[in-house]
Amino acid sequence: MTMNKQWLLASRPTGWPTEANFRLVETAIPTADDGEIVVRNHFMSLDPYMRGRMDDGKSYAQPQPLDQVMQGGSVGEVIESRSPKFAVGDKVRGGLGWQQYGKAKAELFVKITETRVPLSAYLGVLGMPGVTAWMGLSQIIEPKAGETLVVSAASGAVGGVVGQLAKAKGCHVVGIAGGAMKCKLVVEEFGFDTCVDYKAADFREKFKNATPKGVDGYFENVGGEVLDTVFGRMNAFGRVAVCGLIAGYNEAAAPMTQFRAILINRLKVQGFIVSERMDLWPQALQELAGLVVSGNLKYRETVAQGIEAAPRAFLGLLKGENVGKQVVKLI
Amino acid sequence: MTMNKQWLLASRPTGWPTEANFRLVETAIPTADDGEIVVRNHFMSLDPYMRGRMDDGKSYAQPQPLDQVMQGGSVGEVIESRSPKFAVGDKVRGGLGWQQYGKAKAELFVKITETRVPLSAYLGVLGMPGVTAWMGLSQIIEPKAGETLVVSAASGAVGGVVGQLAKAKGCHVVGIAGGAMKCKLVVEEFGFDTCVDYKAADFREKFKNATPKGVDGYFENVGGEVLDTVFGRMNAFGRVAVCGLIAGYNEAAAPMTQFRAILINRLKVQGFIVSERMDLWPQALQELAGLVVSGNLKYRETVAQGIEAAPRAFLGLLKGENVGKQVVKLI
Repeated sequence: MTMNKQWLLASRPTGWPTEANFRLVETAIPTADDGEIVVRNHFMSLDPYMRGRMDDGKSYAQPQPLDQVMQGGSVGEVIESRSPKFAVGDKVRGGLGWQQYGKAKAELFVKITETRVPLSAYLGVLGMPGVTAWMGLSQIIEPKAGETLVVSAASGAVGGVVGQLAKAKGCHVVGIAGGAMKCKLVVEEFGFDTCVDYKAADFREKFKNATPKGVDGYFENVGGEVLDTVFGRMNAFGRVAVCGLIAGYNEAAAPMTQFRAILINRLKVQGFIVSERMDLWPQALQELAGLVVSGNLKYRETVAQGIEAAPRAFLGLLKGENVGKQVVKLI
Repeated sequence: MTMNKQWLLASRPTGWPTEANFRLVETAIPTADDGEIVVRNHFMSLDPYMRGRMDDGKSYAQPQPLDQVMQGGSVGEVIESRSPKFAVGDKVRGGLGWQQYGKAKAELFVKITETRVPLSAYLGVLGMPGVTAWMGLSQIIEPKAGETLVVSAASGAVGGVVGQLAKAKGCHVVGIAGGAMKCKLVVEEFGFDTCVDYKAADFREKFKNATPKGVDGYFENVGGEVLDTVFGRMNAFGRVAVCGLIAGYNEAAAPMTQFRAILINRLKVQGFIVSERMDLWPQALQELAGLVVSGNLKYRETVAQGIEAAPRAFLGLLKGENVGKQVVKLI
């Protein structure tokens, strides 16, 4: 009999998580109740936000419950349906988390009908990270042609899309990424104008040279010293979309010394959560899908193999070991 | 022969300014060229922003030039006119700075025709500070009835207006001010719901108790520890208007430890400068004047006597010794 392997949250981390914070269990494959579908996951998503939910503190989402399946996005195939919305064999995107099989109410899934794009892309460029990039850029930064746009974690699932969308708007696009390999990818494959390695000893100097006209828009995924450096280069009326602060998720990040820039340069600094504007997803996904299908929006994936690999891949993601979208391939 | 006493910037301060940074000189009273008027100042304005202009660094305005008359707002009476816009005897608001007499192009002045309000009010509640309060509140915070609105430097020229305008919108209004006397004024005269003394040893605890439902809007004049404390109480989708950061003008302010709140609570934090939206001044002044004339907008002034008193009064302002708008009475 085939079983369903699931990763549960076993304990809450203090500082950096370890594999001991997760527990692998096997349960029976679920069966559908009325209005539900059962899905076999082909890919599951690993994302930085999951680190925040492992904590117990106040945040924008409920904490991940202990001893429950780790929550997260997933794509897969319907294997049982008790809903008229889906038939067995349909491909769907949903949020079944870190497990091989799962079930939920049919209305919590979206059918994937576009076959020119690999299924895993619906967890990245055509999923939450892609919409996040689109939303922060179009709703907060509102870039104009000729402006300088900076994005941190530029080789990541969100950052790569931000830069390419800003290039299409006519911006001068500067990425920030960790290491020469990632910087090369960002420029050569994603088409950024330049990319600065934040691990370099002379990062501040290099960043200054890369932004001779200052910075008009900043898409922030990192925080800490990177944030402080970019704030010191912001132009008057600059806009900062705060999407993530991964530098502070596992340890205290460098303090913010440039808050005064908000006043001096009349900046707008705004945090946002992509799931709170579901009304914008259809427009975002339509635009993103058009660009992907036409070859005008590139993306990369880092694929871990098999459900067992999930915790290790997640820890690597938090340390920046991935390039592009981190997923786990389950079949 | 009557002379014109003027205060010049003699040297740039490092840290706290002293009286030695200013130099009093006497010059002839100017005469008007074509299109100009000569004004005898009745009151001159002292404002925290002047501290920033004494520095040489990058800021939103040009630095105050050395050996030139200290710049600033003023109200007075036309004593010579070579412009059809003004007649001798007209009362005007302009920017003649720290001196008894001055001249400039007529178009740089606004005629004051409302006689039910004292002239000095046009430097405060019906001048730059009042419009600043109106603008930060209406353009950035956009308070809604039932929300909790916090303003720091609550007994100051800007803060007092912010709180009263927010009360009129139906907000629960919490002031922050230095000392029991100022807090009493803020509640009893300006009608705030409550006011917390930031000099109290248990400020954080008291502020928490004063904001049981958290904070939805914050009008920031201070920075440093006060800013950090309020950020720790912000609700989801809170708005912060950054108007001033006086805690950091003369010495390093406490570091910002709560930047993460911007992400977690999806805050909008925005700096602004009142002089960059001159298009909004007529609407603001019309509303403010209506409230002042009807007795529904209270204000206080601290009046220094005589041009000689200006530097000392300015240093007192930076230390919070004033209540309400600080002006210097020149006649």
